[in-house]
Amino acid sequence: MVDSRFFPIAAPVELQAIASLTGAVLSTPAGGAIDKTLTFNNVAALDKAGGKDISFLDNVKYIDLFASSKAGACFVRQKFAARAPEGMILLVTDTPYYAYALATHHFYPETAIAAVISPSAHVAKSATIGKNVRIDAGAVIGEKVVLGDGSWIGANTVIDHGVEIGSNTRIGALCALSHTLIGNRVIIHRGVHIGQDGFGFAPSPVGILKVPQMGRVIIGDDVEIGSGTCIDRGAGPDTIIGNFSKIDNLVQIAHNVQIGKYVIIAAQCGIAGSTHVGDGVMIGGQVGLAGHIHIGTKAKVAAQSGVMNDIPVGESYGGSPAMPIKDWHRQTVAIAKLNKKES
Amino acid sequence: MVDSRFFPIAAPVELQAIASLTGAVLSTPAGGAIDKTLTFNNVAALDKAGGKDISFLDNVKYIDLFASSKAGACFVRQKFAARAPEGMILLVTDTPYYAYALATHHFYPETAIAAVISPSAHVAKSATIGKNVRIDAGAVIGEKVVLGDGSWIGANTVIDHGVEIGSNTRIGALCALSHTLIGNRVIIHRGVHIGQDGFGFAPSPVGILKVPQMGRVIIGDDVEIGSGTCIDRGAGPDTIIGNFSKIDNLVQIAHNVQIGKYVIIAAQCGIAGSTHVGDGVMIGGQVGLAGHIHIGTKAKVAAQSGVMNDIPVGESYGGSPAMPIKDWHRQTVAIAKLNKKES
Amino acid sequence: MVDSRFFPIAAPVELQAIASLTGAVLSTPAGGAIDKTLTFNNVAALDKAGGKDISFLDNVKYIDLFASSKAGACFVRQKFAARAPEGMILLVTDTPYYAYALATHHFYPETAIAAVISPSAHVAKSATIGKNVRIDAGAVIGEKVVLGDGSWIGANTVIDHGVEIGSNTRIGALCALSHTLIGNRVIIHRGVHIGQDGFGFAPSPVGILKVPQMGRVIIGDDVEIGSGTCIDRGAGPDTIIGNFSKIDNLVQIAHNVQIGKYVIIAAQCGIAGSTHVGDGVMIGGQVGLAGHIHIGTKAKVAAQSGVMNDIPVGESYGGSPAMPIKDWHRQTVAIAKLNKKES
Repeated sequence: MVDSRFFPIAAPVELQAIASLTGAVLSTPAGGAIDKTLTFNNVAALDKAGGKDISFLDNVKYIDLFASSKAGACFVRQKFAARAPEGMILLVTDTPYYAYALATHHFYPETAIAAVISPSAHVAKSATIGKNVRIDAGAVIGEKVVLGDGSWIGANTVIDHGVEIGSNTRIGALCALSHTLIGNRVIIHRGVHIGQDGFGFAPSPVGILKVPQMGRVIIGDDVEIGSGTCIDRGAGPDTIIGNFSKIDNLVQIAHNVQIGKYVIIAAQCGIAGSTHVGDGVMIGGQVGLAGHIHIGTKAKVAAQSGVMNDIPVGESYGGSPAMPIKDWHRQTVAIAKLNKKES
Repeated sequence: MVDSRFFPIAAPVELQAIASLTGAVLSTPAGGAIDKTLTFNNVAALDKAGGKDISFLDNVKYIDLFASSKAGACFVRQKFAARAPEGMILLVTDTPYYAYALATHHFYPETAIAAVISPSAHVAKSATIGKNVRIDAGAVIGEKVVLGDGSWIGANTVIDHGVEIGSNTRIGALCALSHTLIGNRVIIHRGVHIGQDGFGFAPSPVGILKVPQMGRVIIGDDVEIGSGTCIDRGAGPDTIIGNFSKIDNLVQIAHNVQIGKYVIIAAQCGIAGSTHVGDGVMIGGQVGLAGHIHIGTKAKVAAQSGVMNDIPVGESYGGSPAMPIKDWHRQTVAIAKLNKKES
Repeated sequence: MVDSRFFPIAAPVELQAIASLTGAVLSTPAGGAIDKTLTFNNVAALDKAGGKDISFLDNVKYIDLFASSKAGACFVRQKFAARAPEGMILLVTDTPYYAYALATHHFYPETAIAAVISPSAHVAKSATIGKNVRIDAGAVIGEKVVLGDGSWIGANTVIDHGVEIGSNTRIGALCALSHTLIGNRVIIHRGVHIGQDGFGFAPSPVGILKVPQMGRVIIGDDVEIGSGTCIDRGAGPDTIIGNFSKIDNLVQIAHNVQIGKYVIIAAQCGIAGSTHVGDGVMIGGQVGLAGHIHIGTKAKVAAQSGVMNDIPVGESYGGSPAMPIKDWHRQTVAIAKLNKKES
């Protein structure tokens, strides 16, 4: 059950609606008849769900929780259906996590924002504010900022002069943005810093000379960026985040980096200057990418890898320094053997 | 000497009081008589301390600083006492760092907060504010927030609707909290982000579908959380931090993570989704824990480790991928030998 | 071309002025005469530059872009001059990146700040505010804070009591500073946290005792500190950052750390308590330095290294655990061979 202090109470939904929404096929362990007009009140994890909740099994690690779950209905792959407890209605699908996400959106549809501009927000007169915009207390909107229709600026967030934000984009509390153009339907979580100077210094006879950073940050549509993440603006070229890319918390993206579309970057990764990441790349947590390299389309990089060189299209890499993931696994085994010999 | 711009001037304390507070046994290098009514004015590091200061030796690396220290008195283990300089009074104890901490608390007792609600804070009328609460300038307290007695909300911090904070809990400046319940005597340092959406995305035929995050963050009593740390709320289950656990700066804690009691997590660690960390676990800096694993009670994880699998109760692990720490040390040696052969 | 929403339009500059400013020697691929009164409008990257732009070639990776660049003039080392495209004017120099930085500063001279104290800033009456100070909306300036001439405090930044900031120092938006003394001409980017409690806990019979942190943070002149970085104050000694040191984003600096002068620390590094880093040290991204160690003057540490012990003066280290970089490279090769044998 969700906590009503934080979430709305969902309206009940008929089983039939869930099945047609997700394309899941209804069945039961015993093969009996199913009342498609049964209603469910909520989604819940396998071990928390009750008879009026819908759950899901995606990761086989949780098969025992599935087998003992009291969930009234559950999204599950056909191959695990036989382990279902008696009385559970099965929503059989090849994509149980996706189906669960669809069902959750159905129970908790996104609500329109309250279009209120707080009297304690500081909005420059030269800013262009779209329709149905929400600006929370203490937010600072600089000169000539453009906020698209339906956008939401969180409390105490600071948007510097000239920044443009598309429609239905949400910027969380306590963000600082400058030198940045952002698309539509973007979600920037709280505490994100975008557009600050890149780390550019030239060694010089008189010490270290700061190199002026004359580029911008360009963020496409439908991007999501996690809390505490930093994206430096370009040095001359722009720093670019492509449409639909998802970036987790505390990630560092340096100047001139170009991230393609549909890229997924897990928490605490660092991408050094001028590196290009192709479309559909998936990067695990705490990975470091060196500067001036290219990560090919749909490549995958294992958590904690240190990537020093280009990765070809579609390849999986791991290790530090990173190598093709099969080599890395073989290497791990070879070292373990060596270890055994020596001991 | 502490800087009076930042700290109060401590009142002098008699040697006798220090000894009985800490259980330390008084002695001198030469074995002479000790005047227990001597007063000391302060605590200080070995190389900064003078005759009216009390210092401590805990890490053997600093034995030379101890031997030449001008501290009037010093907490020290018996085995190092022989290295003491002439004239130093020894406070012999098995736990010099703990004794030093007790003495410091004695010199600098925590003072009550000034219970003032800044007129420039934004406090919703539906919020429940306890007795003796302090709310600093620019803080935003949302609808139906509950602040316990003696709690302190720092400047420009944003507390979203429904959040509950226990008594004598201190939230630093520039924090953003939502979907969170916090216990008593908790310290949240500045710039902490708690309760934002976890990184939940389901691959889908139409790209990447955001999975609504319907859980909370539950933080126990006496927890301390460092600056810049991010704790995502649960996806359905809650994210939980147990009593007395201490988390350093810039740590990432993903959705559904459960941290036990008395856990210590050093800076820049990342804990992926749904992982459970047992009571009394100690985790070094920059460690990554994969998702969906269990770290057994009182296990230890060396800095920079990458933990892919469960760790049994009480074991020490190191390396990336992590292994029992003895294996890791042996492996390091074996590789070094290999290196020598090859060169 | 820079985006005029974010940057001023530069005044044209004569080729002659650029050459004398940087000491570069003018030449052409064909060896023809050069009109030194030609004017240029801007700096730009090799692949973006047009006939009125000046570019640079520093990293040999971009030699092909150089060869096909339409830049009107380009800083380049003599050895690459032969690859220049016809019609490009060469500005030959041994330090093209430095020369480019000088030229960029010439096109875009730093402008004086608008010395305005926002009426919505909260400035304590006991604070000492220098001449020509700028304080942005929502900033909180505590009791007895000292702000030097020409300093700039960003929006919603919180400066705690007693903090002293030198002249011409700029603190970005959403920073929180306490227990800190800062020099002149320092740049602190947005979202930086300085002076909070270090992570000091003493194991005790009753659990974990917080150790009061009685030191400060001392930051020298001409330092630059990146977004999201955390610098804890000293436990008794101070945490110190030396003159001209440059620290990137999301770096963790623990209590009692001493950083020398002209040190460069890349993003996401973590430096554990009481470690000393010598003058001129360069540290790559995501490096971890253990506590209580010394990094010798002008040492270099490769990205993602884990440094457990002292590094001698001038040495280069890599790996985790870190070793002399030649050993590390040899080891990488030796393991790869082993891998091959085994497979």
